[in-house]
Amino acid sequence: FQRILVAGGAGFLGSNLCRRLVNDGHEVICLDNFFTGTKMNVSDLVGKPNFELIRHDVTEPLLLEVDQIYNLACPASPPHYQYDTVKTLRTSFLGALNMLELGKKCRARVLQTSTSEVYGDPDITPQTESYWGNVNPIGVRSCYDEGKRVSETLFREFRVQEGVDTRIVRIFNTYGPGMHPHDGRVISNFIMQALAGDDITLYGDGSQTRSFCFVSDQVDGLIKMMNNPNAHPGPINIGNPNEFTIRELAALCIELTGSKSQLIQLPLPGDDPKQRCPDITLARKELDWEPSVQLREGLEKTIAYFAALDKSKF
Amino acid sequence: FQRILVAGGAGFLGSNLCRRLVNDGHEVICLDNFFTGTKMNVSDLVGKPNFELIRHDVTEPLLLEVDQIYNLACPASPPHYQYDTVKTLRTSFLGALNMLELGKKCRARVLQTSTSEVYGDPDITPQTESYWGNVNPIGVRSCYDEGKRVSETLFREFRVQEGVDTRIVRIFNTYGPGMHPHDGRVISNFIMQALAGDDITLYGDGSQTRSFCFVSDQVDGLIKMMNNPNAHPGPINIGNPNEFTIRELAALCIELTGSKSQLIQLPLPGDDPKQRCPDITLARKELDWEPSVQLREGLEKTIAYFAALDKSKF
Ligand SMILES: NC(=O)c1ccc[n+]([C@@H]2O[C@H](COP(=O)([O-])OP(=O)(O)OC[C@H]3O[C@@H](n4cnc5c(N)ncnc54)[C@H](O)[C@@H]3O)[C@@H](O)[C@H]2O)c1
Ligand SMILES: NC(=O)c1ccc[n+]([C@@H]2O[C@H](COP(=O)([O-])OP(=O)(O)OC[C@H]3O[C@@H](n4cnc5c(N)ncnc54)[C@H](O)[C@@H]3O)[C@@H](O)[C@H]2O)c1
Ligand SMILES: O=c1ccn([C@@H]2O[C@H](COP(=O)(O)OP(=O)(O)O)[C@@H](O)[C@H]2O)c(=O)[nH]1
Ligand SMILES: O=c1ccn([C@@H]2O[C@H](COP(=O)(O)OP(=O)(O)O)[C@@H](O)[C@H]2O)c(=O)[nH]1
Ligand SMILES: O=c1ccn([C@@H]2O[C@H](COP(=O)(O)OP(=O)(O)O)[C@@H](O)[C@H]2O)c(=O)[nH]1
Ligand SMILES: O=c1ccn([C@@H]2O[C@H](COP(=O)(O)OP(=O)(O)O)[C@@H](O)[C@H]2O)c(=O)[nH]1
Repeated sequence: FQRILVAGGAGFLGSNLCRRLVNDGHEVICLDNFFTGTKMNVSDLVGKPNFELIRHDVTEPLLLEVDQIYNLACPASPPHYQYDTVKTLRTSFLGALNMLELGKKCRARVLQTSTSEVYGDPDITPQTESYWGNVNPIGVRSCYDEGKRVSETLFREFRVQEGVDTRIVRIFNTYGPGMHPHDGRVISNFIMQALAGDDITLYGDGSQTRSFCFVSDQVDGLIKMMNNPNAHPGPINIGNPNEFTIRELAALCIELTGSKSQLIQLPLPGDDPKQRCPDITLARKELDWEPSVQLREGLEKTIAYFAALDKSKF
Repeated sequence: FQRILVAGGAGFLGSNLCRRLVNDGHEVICLDNFFTGTKMNVSDLVGKPNFELIRHDVTEPLLLEVDQIYNLACPASPPHYQYDTVKTLRTSFLGALNMLELGKKCRARVLQTSTSEVYGDPDITPQTESYWGNVNPIGVRSCYDEGKRVSETLFREFRVQEGVDTRIVRIFNTYGPGMHPHDGRVISNFIMQALAGDDITLYGDGSQTRSFCFVSDQVDGLIKMMNNPNAHPGPINIGNPNEFTIRELAALCIELTGSKSQLIQLPLPGDDPKQRCPDITLARKELDWEPSVQLREGLEKTIAYFAALDKSKF
């Protein structure tokens, strides 16, 4: 077994990752400041002998002895990362810096969860890792996009200059059980609205596209990347290449919940990317990874999770 | 008069800016860690009652009472910013953060010297401020380019969220008296080589272009931006829109020095932009600024400076 630190481990992806790693018998330290994550997300793990929960903010340095570090600490949903944009920038930059310094000190491998947002509003589709992106440095999404881009640069430089064993994954939109019901991202919004019979809030005309990866596939990808045999440092895209318009997604959510909800149109937020679809050739080749859960099946599981959720607790 | 902090004030641009501000009667504090700047650059100002020199690293917070802050602290030449890439990233990010926090505390206006490098290897020419750029997040220039991009984001967010009065200038290649002879940038290299009769080192075939702004024009632009009547926060391009190939520049340096130097070709460094030319429509309109010194005249002054320099002191 390995001693593994998961920064941001109480969040949506982090808690799913911790669960897998704990079940695989590793010694897992989950670090979080509980900004968007909750203790509830990992309540089934608390008390297990190979799981530990630490309240800590990644913008502060820390010292631990571990073998692997997954850095997921960063709000991922636009309303959350826009709540305090300066803090988001500090979390991205200083979080990456502190995890890399820690990795350097204790010779641990460090994996960064970057994002498809580094491609911005892409001119090419699907997006390959060699594409440099089309990102607004001074717009409403910049605190997240530029924070993630510069954290990739930090990862590159700690590898090249400081000799740290690094990995970068570019995560494309991921969903599934464990999402926060008021997270603000499209799948949680649409399912919550459909289940409640509320209007489905389409931003813009709904013709923009996204590609949705189910959480178990994403967690597989992260673990394969951390342990990939050729030590490929990335960046490698991890996402599901099946692309849907947001309008198609809304229709599917209504169909699968049997809801009577109506679509309403709200203004499109600034700099909202028009398309997003990963080219996963590199992940197939280097990690022998591809997604196995498609949207309809994944949505069914996610709807079951949201339907069973005690909404009074959020 | 104003109390003005110039971070990176002992460098090439900073020392020229300090000189202008001191001569205009302001109270100037020059802050520097002397990584690429030298005390010699401001030796004529030391001892003047309205000039003060502080040894400080912008990656550390500091507290002062000032009205205006110019943040120029960052190595600008590729060999210098690549000397310690992690430090360059820290300087860009933490330097911007600390200057903005200081500006917030003492209600000072803060100007960031960003760069044409935020456009990367641009797909459009000339580059307008609305262009989002074509930058490699994980290449040999990324520590500088992404560091500067994210510092622009910090400036935006401190303006929008924290209410700090900010300005962003995107500086295009600037040269003139005060440059370090071993700075590594093209104009200092070519003139030093031409004066010594050494080979002129052309990287690549010399067909890449740059636009060169004389330092006095640049200093005018920075001061006009800091004090612009409409409080336009920028970013605004400041540079000379006359574009030259690097081969043309070499020929001009040989001609003006009357040198017998030969051109030799060396490999083109990675990610070297193929073209760079500012669109200065916005500076003309908002600042009533345009450059007044053209390349031939500026080179003559710069050659006179390098010829008179005591090379044993560097
Ligand atoms: N889910 C996606 O679709 C997606 C897509 C691209 C990238 N990512 C990246 O994956 C990571 C996890 O995303 P998620 O969907 O689980 O988001 P999330 O918001 O559910 O989880 C983020 C976790 O990090 C914690 N955190 C935030 N700031 C912190 C700080 N300063 N110190 C310590 N902990 C902090 C939060 O409390 C939360 O538990 C993020 O880095 C995100 O950018 C996610
Ligand atoms: N000259 C150009 O062509 C050009 C073009 C684009 C942008 N810029 C920007 O203008 C600014 C000044 O450039 P320059 O040409 O004068 O470069 P320079 O290297 O001569 O000056 C930079 C100064 O900052 C100081 N410095 C560096 N790191 C520091 C730190 N951590 N703490 C305190 N001081 C530090 C250096 O010692 C030096 O005095 C830089 O921010 C640069 O990125 C310059
Ligand atoms: O983008 C953000 C915004 C806030 N926080 C943290 O979340 C907690 C609550 O922040 P909030 O601003 O809601 O409250 P306050 O700072 O006033 O306690 C604090 O530890 C913040 O540092 C965070 O990690 N990321
Ligand atoms: O209630 C919502 C939430 C999001 N969106 C759209 O769905 C897409 C995905 O948004 P999300 O916030 O989930 O992630 P993003 O990929 O934009 O970061 C974007 O085009 C949003 O404008 C929407 O139409 N309605
Ligand atoms: O990109 C850099 C590299 C170095 N330095 C500073 O310049 C000084 C000398 O650095 P160097 O690495 O040459 O020597 P050392 O750190 O070993 O003293 C130190 O204060 C560094 O922090 C800097 O500001 N920017
Ligand atoms: O000795 C030199 C130094 C630079 N260059 C080229 O001149 C251009 C400007 O280089 P510089 O380092 O001055 O600034 P940049 O604009 O690339 O940051 C680039 O294409 C360099 O490859 C060159 O041909 N010979």
